[in-house]
Amino acid sequence: MNRKPNILFIMADQLRADYLGCNGHPNIRTPNIDALAARGVNFNRAYCQAPICGPSRMSFYTGRYASSHGASLNNAPLRIDERTLGDYLRPEGYRVALVGKTHMKRDDEGMQRLGIDPGSSLGVLVSECGFEPYERDDGLHPDQSVDPDLKYNQYLRSKGYGGHNPWHDYANSVEGDNGEVLSGWQMRHADRPARVKEVDSETAYTTRRAMDFIKEAANSPWCLHLSYIKPHWPYIAPAPYHDMYGKNDILPAARSEAELRDPHPVTAAFMQHAESREFSRDEVRERVIPTYMGLITQLDDHLGQLMAFLGERGELDNTLIVLTSDHGDYLGDHWLGEKELFHDASVRIPMIIVDPRPAADVTRGSRSSRLVEGIDLLPTFVDYVGGGKFDHILEGRSLLPLIEGRDEIQWRTHAFSENDYARRGARQTLGLPPDQAKAYMVTDGHWKYVHYEHFQPQLFDLAKDPFELEDRASDPDCAAVCQELESALFRWFRERRMRVTVSNTRVAKSTGMSHKRGYLFGLW
Amino acid sequence: MNRKPNILFIMADQLRADYLGCNGHPNIRTPNIDALAARGVNFNRAYCQAPICGPSRMSFYTGRYASSHGASLNNAPLRIDERTLGDYLRPEGYRVALVGKTHMKRDDEGMQRLGIDPGSSLGVLVSECGFEPYERDDGLHPDQSVDPDLKYNQYLRSKGYGGHNPWHDYANSVEGDNGEVLSGWQMRHADRPARVKEVDSETAYTTRRAMDFIKEAANSPWCLHLSYIKPHWPYIAPAPYHDMYGKNDILPAARSEAELRDPHPVTAAFMQHAESREFSRDEVRERVIPTYMGLITQLDDHLGQLMAFLGERGELDNTLIVLTSDHGDYLGDHWLGEKELFHDASVRIPMIIVDPRPAADVTRGSRSSRLVEGIDLLPTFVDYVGGGKFDHILEGRSLLPLIEGRDEIQWRTHAFSENDYARRGARQTLGLPPDQAKAYMVTDGHWKYVHYEHFQPQLFDLAKDPFELEDRASDPDCAAVCQELESALFRWFRERRMRVTVSNTRVAKSTGMSHKRGYLFGLW
Repeated sequence: MNRKPNILFIMADQLRADYLGCNGHPNIRTPNIDALAARGVNFNRAYCQAPICGPSRMSFYTGRYASSHGASLNNAPLRIDERTLGDYLRPEGYRVALVGKTHMKRDDEGMQRLGIDPGSSLGVLVSECGFEPYERDDGLHPDQSVDPDLKYNQYLRSKGYGGHNPWHDYANSVEGDNGEVLSGWQMRHADRPARVKEVDSETAYTTRRAMDFIKEAANSPWCLHLSYIKPHWPYIAPAPYHDMYGKNDILPAARSEAELRDPHPVTAAFMQHAESREFSRDEVRERVIPTYMGLITQLDDHLGQLMAFLGERGELDNTLIVLTSDHGDYLGDHWLGEKELFHDASVRIPMIIVDPRPAADVTRGSRSSRLVEGIDLLPTFVDYVGGGKFDHILEGRSLLPLIEGRDEIQWRTHAFSENDYARRGARQTLGLPPDQAKAYMVTDGHWKYVHYEHFQPQLFDLAKDPFELEDRASDPDCAAVCQELESALFRWFRERRMRVTVSNTRVAKSTGMSHKRGYLFGLW
Repeated sequence: MNRKPNILFIMADQLRADYLGCNGHPNIRTPNIDALAARGVNFNRAYCQAPICGPSRMSFYTGRYASSHGASLNNAPLRIDERTLGDYLRPEGYRVALVGKTHMKRDDEGMQRLGIDPGSSLGVLVSECGFEPYERDDGLHPDQSVDPDLKYNQYLRSKGYGGHNPWHDYANSVEGDNGEVLSGWQMRHADRPARVKEVDSETAYTTRRAMDFIKEAANSPWCLHLSYIKPHWPYIAPAPYHDMYGKNDILPAARSEAELRDPHPVTAAFMQHAESREFSRDEVRERVIPTYMGLITQLDDHLGQLMAFLGERGELDNTLIVLTSDHGDYLGDHWLGEKELFHDASVRIPMIIVDPRPAADVTRGSRSSRLVEGIDLLPTFVDYVGGGKFDHILEGRSLLPLIEGRDEIQWRTHAFSENDYARRGARQTLGLPPDQAKAYMVTDGHWKYVHYEHFQPQLFDLAKDPFELEDRASDPDCAAVCQELESALFRWFRERRMRVTVSNTRVAKSTGMSHKRGYLFGLW
């Protein structure tokens, strides 16, 4: 049997790299994810290309940096003609589907200008980032904007959870001491169980929908993007996961008094956000993080079920499996909440890849400290299915040489990430116009350098100061390092792939051919 | 009467800025262009964004740098969703049409992917760079690829010039001493007259087609891109323009023995091209440049007729008129032919703007040494017709403040141009892969700095060395200047406008609004 391999591309929203057992967390239980790591390669220096959902995901789905695909903000539509994963895999015979979140915003203006009907098959695909929306659910549904047809709400209603928005009222709410309903939007309620049974929670439901797809897709090769909303906020877990961990299980906050006393101006502005102020309080961390951990263990349990399901179907030896996230979560590290800035808590992501082929046996169960980026997955998948070469568009690199242990390969020397914080209060605090609230990270694995527009840079020595507590940018001893990383950033900008309409192969073939085509210029 | 103003956007292909009377050429006769300069503003530091047809024009038509629109090579298709001039002016009620050349290559792959029929109205527009192709003629028609329906060939045949390709056999061929037909592709024939009467030559025909359009468009405001192929090669002029000038009328070559002895590696590779070797010979310059000048005077005569035509129709006081070119022509300067590199002969362009409004009286007849770029025209036009603000897409700036003499305005401090020479033999000579043959120019008006990938930079002191004969980049006294211009280039890269799907105004309005929209993150 010569089946084409399947691809299971799992993303967990806002999952910190260090909140996994296989990545050294001393207390969290993630045996199934650890088992994936044991069967694959665990990349421990993987970075997202923007530490915020939308831009990071658009990078995953296009294989391009945010500066190239342009969707640098949450809800900035992806340009109608940016190619996405489906554009590469569908011609290879793949069904490319989504279960869960993408944070894709469709380019209405572009569709209108180019006469594309949003209701047509093509219109749906380009609206959904190239995925067949087997089940699209971005996982955040405030009452005022909840889709009346949200499938998960329909499901909840079918199970007896009523009302306009059971996503909020049950899955993301809890009950108080007197039975009153308390919203999960408020972090103070994070230690109470969700008002749904575990089997009806988002993570459980999403996993079942993935299984539905896999059963349905049995007749063709498939790539499934299984994209969980949790452990993203609202930080509410169903029983028993809501109180599986306690305050003694959480990692200590990576922060120092010096950071508070003399913060970088941009960090200082972010520290004023509500989420930073709250997460700087131990009471908040001690109530929220155990639930964040519970949500991760719940996810892990469901991944265990999913692996068992794949095993029973005989799919494990024919499926490339990836586990990653779109970004981390500060959880109070550095006196910050949420994400967006470039400390590892925010920008580093888990990246575990299980390649069942014998060619990958040599690295099975290993850790790799190569610099890996989220944009590497798309080229990896294209490479895996034997697709073409798209090095005039794709900015990531196939990870297969690393997975196959071809250590002689010249690998990238720097990893990059970007942040456009135009929509955050920090921009207003700093008095910046909406197109100038930008920052860029470059790391060579030893040093991490952050270039801020309009403000001084930051430099951290990851080797000596893994918690990134000491900004060395103004240290005269580090001037050469700063200059080198600034140069690397400049080089990176010059290497953006913008000539996307003609391949390098075609350019090479037509070089110097004008005369042969009859354009006889410059001849006497 | 409150008519909307018309826009006449004239481009002459490969017209050097300094081959105009109003720009100081001592011998050329361009009285009608000089009259335009006397009625408008003559910008004498205007730069194209890429000294080669296609990329330069795509910058003119999109208002964006080549690094942003991506069509960095001749015949690299413009991305299907790049907005062009018509997208901005059509919603304002304008008919936006083309007579002549664009060098636009349509994005077949993008059209196919997005289901756009090339034959539909939309398909035609996006194939033609947003212009209504009243008459598209790119002006270069080798026998082996000539469009059998080329309108100009049909016209020539109707006038008795027969055969498969009268464009070549008559308009761009000459007769030898014994009546034999000699091809205009060979520069040795440049001193003989074309085999067409002047009235049937390309410049004459194109002008009449413009008049046809203007007559036809009388009922709506219009923007006409009148885009002449000449004085671009083949360097063949009809009588009497073929021998109007002699070798004593041409400018001396801007070149030095030192340039030959110790050339920059990239310049050295370009010097090996056929056109550079030939134009380095005085015989070639003395035979070709007089004809190049004749073609310019012919163009000038036709512009005179066109202005008279507009005057008779009462359109002169309601029409913004621009005269520019897409790039220059080395003509042997610096031992080079053609264009692409960044000496002024190649990268500087004429830019004369006649604004008939009283608001422009204050600058009428003046010269401006502000740094102007080709990408400024599109925003100027949008501004002129009262269109919206598109500063999240457009990288050029409206010139109206300069034309209105608002001297207090903060203007750009640097101008930029780019060159992707992937398709030229020079790339192979230098052993570069097709995505790394890139160079960038930045000038502050005093200095011109060229950054080459993989090679040392160049620096010219335009103030002391206007012919750019002495490369100062390795002069220790110039280290600070080099560093400053390199920094300006880096800043320029960071300022590219890639977030094209959401305006700055919309971003500003939605800043910090997540909580109001119900996304209650970070609250206790």
